[in-house]
Order: sequence, then structure tokens, then C-alpha cells
Amino acid sequence: MSLIVQKYGGTSVGSIEKIRNVAERVIEMKKKGHDMVVVLSAMSGETDKLIRLAQEITESPNPRELDVLVSTGEQVSVALFSMAVQSLGFKASSLLGHQVKIVTDEAYGRARISEIDTRRIMEEIRKDKIVAVAGFQGQDEKGNITTLGRGGSDTTAVAVAAALKAQVCEIFTDVEGVYTTDPNICPKARKMKKISYEEMLEMASLGAKVLEIRSVEFAKKFKVPVHVRSTFTNKEGTMVVQEDKSMEKILVSGVTYNKNEARITITKVPDRPGIATKIFVPISDAGVVVDMIIQNTSEEGLTDLTFTVPKNDFKKTMNIVKKVAKEIKAERVMGDENIAKVSIIGLGMRNHAGVATTMFSALAKEGINIMMISTSEIKISCVIDEKYTELAVRTLHSAFHLDEEPK
Amino acid sequence: MSLIVQKYGGTSVGSIEKIRNVAERVIEMKKKGHDMVVVLSAMSGETDKLIRLAQEITESPNPRELDVLVSTGEQVSVALFSMAVQSLGFKASSLLGHQVKIVTDEAYGRARISEIDTRRIMEEIRKDKIVAVAGFQGQDEKGNITTLGRGGSDTTAVAVAAALKAQVCEIFTDVEGVYTTDPNICPKARKMKKISYEEMLEMASLGAKVLEIRSVEFAKKFKVPVHVRSTFTNKEGTMVVQEDKSMEKILVSGVTYNKNEARITITKVPDRPGIATKIFVPISDAGVVVDMIIQNTSEEGLTDLTFTVPKNDFKKTMNIVKKVAKEIKAERVMGDENIAKVSIIGLGMRNHAGVATTMFSALAKEGINIMMISTSEIKISCVIDEKYTELAVRTLHSAFHLDEEPK
Repeated sequence: MSLIVQKYGGTSVGSIEKIRNVAERVIEMKKKGHDMVVVLSAMSGETDKLIRLAQEITESPNPRELDVLVSTGEQVSVALFSMAVQSLGFKASSLLGHQVKIVTDEAYGRARISEIDTRRIMEEIRKDKIVAVAGFQGQDEKGNITTLGRGGSDTTAVAVAAALKAQVCEIFTDVEGVYTTDPNICPKARKMKKISYEEMLEMASLGAKVLEIRSVEFAKKFKVPVHVRSTFTNKEGTMVVQEDKSMEKILVSGVTYNKNEARITITKVPDRPGIATKIFVPISDAGVVVDMIIQNTSEEGLTDLTFTVPKNDFKKTMNIVKKVAKEIKAERVMGDENIAKVSIIGLGMRNHAGVATTMFSALAKEGINIMMISTSEIKISCVIDEKYTELAVRTLHSAFHLDEEPK
Repeated sequence: MSLIVQKYGGTSVGSIEKIRNVAERVIEMKKKGHDMVVVLSAMSGETDKLIRLAQEITESPNPRELDVLVSTGEQVSVALFSMAVQSLGFKASSLLGHQVKIVTDEAYGRARISEIDTRRIMEEIRKDKIVAVAGFQGQDEKGNITTLGRGGSDTTAVAVAAALKAQVCEIFTDVEGVYTTDPNICPKARKMKKISYEEMLEMASLGAKVLEIRSVEFAKKFKVPVHVRSTFTNKEGTMVVQEDKSMEKILVSGVTYNKNEARITITKVPDRPGIATKIFVPISDAGVVVDMIIQNTSEEGLTDLTFTVPKNDFKKTMNIVKKVAKEIKAERVMGDENIAKVSIIGLGMRNHAGVATTMFSALAKEGINIMMISTSEIKISCVIDEKYTELAVRTLHSAFHLDEEPK
């Protein structure tokens, strides 16, 4: 007998029928003797519907009030789920963020959890109840409602699991686990049996959408075993866990891609100290997050500077950069929205040479030109022409033997 | 400059457009220098929609979870209203039941307010904010969400006004005030300028739907002046206030009717001590509230007993009564669903004789037979054949000179 935290996303609770199915599923585990805490998202579509209501009133709704509004989505889910469990003859109780006491900072819309009080949850568990915790929401020190941002229910689940020292945090979703790459563009993608927190972090930040990145950070920090699996089957999914020896043997665990970036190049920038500040401070002041930056070797005191920004911020950034380029007397500014970033991720890279070479030559063999490269300890990313994205992903997937089950 | 509490019902906030109108209306008052606290109901139709969702899961949803569910309706309203105020350039903050701290007992679905903490509201007012308080909801001592039952937002408004010692509590609704009777069946019905708490209590309990009865009890207890008025005009409505000398001059202030009762008669009941207990205890155990009871003079140790119950409980009560009648060896049980109760209400009755006589003879003149009579200090009710309801109301309205403005 042990305590298990399960999280069900919006598509898993998207209708009364589905909520009932989830209730049955949870009850099955309860019958086996487990203490069950269930974290739920809003019914699919609800959060968007609430945001649309707000936007009918004003283009930029007050963040505090927006959180009051959207947090009702999860409140509806946990109430309906608890009723469903009760109607099947089991005890249940819903708990909202402020009832558990999930304490966060005051950053409305993207709050960070600072503390979770486990007393109320444990009190309900001792009464033999299935506890339904509203995902995505918390309250700040003053009792204001906060939300954790998109995908925040994953974070709630992992944080609750950490606080309760749960045996496992099961994230139920509409896919069967974490794949070596996106099965929609690579039919040979395989579901992984397990993956390390570090790799999962890179995969999440590089474009894999299966787990919210902050939930992985939490899981890593508190060593919570996370099981990503499907609501619609009973198959085992993917375990996200601490790395072990066996993991280091695998050079590359996964291939990701991201089409949501754009590239900006400034040519013939006078190469003197402080010039990067002149360019990047106004960009970051505008709230734009720069991803990759490359500066070519300086020739005759002039250098070319290339960097990427989210596609949504492309126009805004171009306007800023054009102004700055004039001021610093650079030659010209070029933009390119038709790029993609493909990445390989693997713990094995740390101890093995030649991974980069294999990547570059595999791409070259298919005639794919690499525009930018960036690396970390366990990943290599290349920016390429967007039209080659799918080809590049499939090529890398084969080149690193991800098409076959690992030995 | 003074503090004003306003309450807007579901139809007043039934759309984004209407919410914006309410915001403009409140801002107008704010501009005049008043501190504004606004209590809002759920957007019209929302509460019913949420209840339907619950009923798709189970016919008898758990009351605690039902309150968690339906309280989201008001949460949505206060968030959207605050955004609307802010988009018009004024400061606002929403506060939910648990944020204000509106403390209630644990009677889910029909909780009673025991205490209101004014500190958080006053803190926001001191920041020059318009405060939007979610109506209908509170929390019990343990932090569980409770709701006050249908029309509970009126009670929230009056209770908040009492706690804040507001100058007035304005209840905005879809009618222009309290009428001498229902204008839909009596075209000569007049809007009253003022009415006493006692009369309003009787009117509310006898069928007038303009104010929830518990809100009037609160207003009376804490002497809160209540102004009932229309959201859609700027006209003065009706003031519900403490009685004054002028009010006693008016014999009858209003006429009400109620078609939602049914009558049950048990004939030839053996008239011995304890017999009423035998009959009425099982009825009240079944949760049925008996309204009028009449027992005829006993003849030869046998008596006839007649009483009324809500129409919804008629069948249930008949089944109970038939069983009891057999046990106590009464003759038979008769039921009649086609009845109505018409009532006249007036403080003046206390000191004036002849009011009942005027009522009975006015009805008699129209050939309307009186089946049952009950009286209190300031009201007289008669049960009549349902088909005469409208005629009876118009007749009484004229008989007591309510067709004309009082001198």
C-alpha cells in the first residue's frame, strides 16, 4: 500500500463520460489499497473559453482578475470528478489551491509554487477519501488566487507528489509516453521505457510537448519518479527518473524540432566592447527571449551577428534591431522566418566524442545546410532551412539508431 | 462621501455588454465620491447550467461538491466585472467568499452567514478600489466553500452592507421596485416609495419574488436601508426601511398570491391528545414544510384536519398521510392541488379593526369562496379556488384603495 498521485489533463476530463471513466480508473487503484490523490486540469476548451470572455471585455485583462477567472475551470473539474467518485460508492473530496494551501509567489499567470501544506490532504486521506486537487492554481501569501501558466497542472501534480513523498506521480495524457521523436513526422519513433530528468528537461525545452518543463524541474529537484502514460489504455508509459549507469550507454535518446523561431542577422557590426549590450538590452527590455546567438570572427574590426527569437516576436524585434543598427552604424539587418531547429539529446554525449560529427555528416549527406549550431553538455542543436525539418528529424533518428529498440 | 453597497442580479450581468453597463453605472457613483462595494450574482443561466452538469453525473450530487461547482458562477462574474472597471480606467479588485471571509455554518446549499470580516474589503477601499464581492458564497470554519441558496446574493449584499455600516444597500434587479401587487396580473399595481421590513418579510414569504426573505431578515436585524431598483433605468425604486408613523396609517400595503401550495384534508380524525403529532411528525421527517393548518371543532370526538404543503411535496405527503390515516382510523384523505393563497399585508392592521371583514366581503361579492384563513399581526391569508386568483388579487387591490396613490 502506498500513496500515488495521478494527474489527468483536459482531454482526459473533456466530458462527463470521460470524467466518469477517470473516476473508475482511480477507484480501481483505490481498491488495490493505494491512497489516491488526483490532480485535474480544466475540461478541454474551458480555459480558452474563459480567456475569450475576458478578451471580449479588454485586450489586456488585469492578470490578477484573469487568474480568478480561469481558475474556475479546474474548480469545475474537481467538483464533478468528486461527484462521479461518490456516485460510484467511494468517498471523495475536492480541494482547491487555497484549501490545500498551495502557496505561490505573486506572479499572476505564471506563479511559482513555494510551499505546499500537506495537512488537509492527509486529513482527507485518513478519512479514506480519494482527494481531487485542482491543478494549475495556488494562492499567494495574501490569499489572492494565482495560476501557474499553461501546463501548470503537471507542475501541481509533481509538486504535490513531492510534498506527500508519493511513490510515483502518474501523468495521464493523450499520448502513450515520451517518444524518441515526434511520431507524427517519424513513423519509426519509439516510446521510451525510461528517460532521465536531465534529458527530459532538454526535450521539453527543445519542443517535445508531453511534459511541462517546470514540472520536470520539480521532479528532478525532489527526485519524484514520474510516469507519463495514456488515459485511454492500460499500457506502461515512460518513466522519468534519476539517471543510472545504463542510460549513459545510449549516445542519443531523442530527436526534437522546433519551428517556432526566426533568425535575425546584423552584418558588419563595428566590433568594439559594449556593442552586444547596445543590441540585446533593448530586445530583452521588450520582453523578447533570445535563444541562440552566433558572432562570426571579426574582420577589419567588423563582425556579423546572428541570433534567433520566437517567431511571435520576430516583427517587434526586427523594428528594434533596425533602429539600433542605424545608431551603431552596422551595414544591414536581415530576417528569416523560414528556419527550424533540430536537436539531439542524450546523456551519453558527455563521455563520447564524435556525436556532433555524426550529426553534421548525416545532415550533409541529405544536402541539408546547417546555419547555426549550439551545444550543451547533453544536446546539440542545429538551425536549418524549415523545409528540411521532417527529413532532418528522420535522418537523425536513423543515424543514431533510434529506429531500433536499444540492446 | 459615503460607502454604498450595490447588488446586481444574474439578468443585470447576463452578457459582456451588460457587465460593461454595470461597470459604467458603478463608476458614475465612484466619480461622485462614494466608496463602492458591488455584490454580483452569476451570469443568468450559468448556475442552472452548472447544476445540469452535476445532474448528468448523478441525480443527487454531494452537497459539498455542488457548492464547489456552482460557486464558480459568481467567481466568473466578479472577475469579468473587475476587468470591465479596470478597462474603463478605474481601480477594482474582486473578492471571493473565502477572501473576504464571509463565514457561514456548514449547511451546504443553504448556509447561513455567521460573520463577515471587513478588513480585506476596507483595505481595498482605502486603495481607492471598487470592490467586487462574489455573492451567494461563503466558507465554513474549516475553509470549505458553502453557498447560501437561491437568491443568496441579496443576503450577501445586505450582510456586507450591515458589516460595513454602509449608508444604503441598493438591490438592482429587472423590476423597478416593490409593487403593491404583481403588475402582470393587476395593471393598477403601483410601485411603493417605501415599505417596512416587517411588511417586506411578509410579502417575500407570501410570494413576492423581488427580495430573498433572508436578506430582509438581515436588513431588519441590522437596520440596513435597502433600496430595490431597476438596473435598466435611473428611476428611484422602493426603500425598505424601519417603520415610521406614516406607515401605520396605511391599512394594507400590498396584496400577494401563491399558487404553489396544495391542500390536504383528513376527515373524522379521532380527537385525542397526541393525534397531531402522529400526523405531522412523519411529514416533517420527510422534509415537507406545512404552511397553514386548520382543525375544525370536534363533534362526537371526531375532527377534520386540513393543511397546506408545497405543491412539489403534494404526492409524497399524500402517501404519508394515507398510511397514517389508516393507523389512526380516520375516515378518509382528500387532496386538492387547484388552490391558491391570496394575502393582504399592512402594518396598519395592528391598530385597525375591520380589515378582515373588508377582505372577506370583497371576495364574497365576487362569489369567491374562502376555504382556509390564517392571520398574523400584519397579514391575512385566504385559500381560494386557484381559478379565481387573478380576480381575487384585483378585487382586494381595489377594495383597499391600492389602485390610487396614498394621500
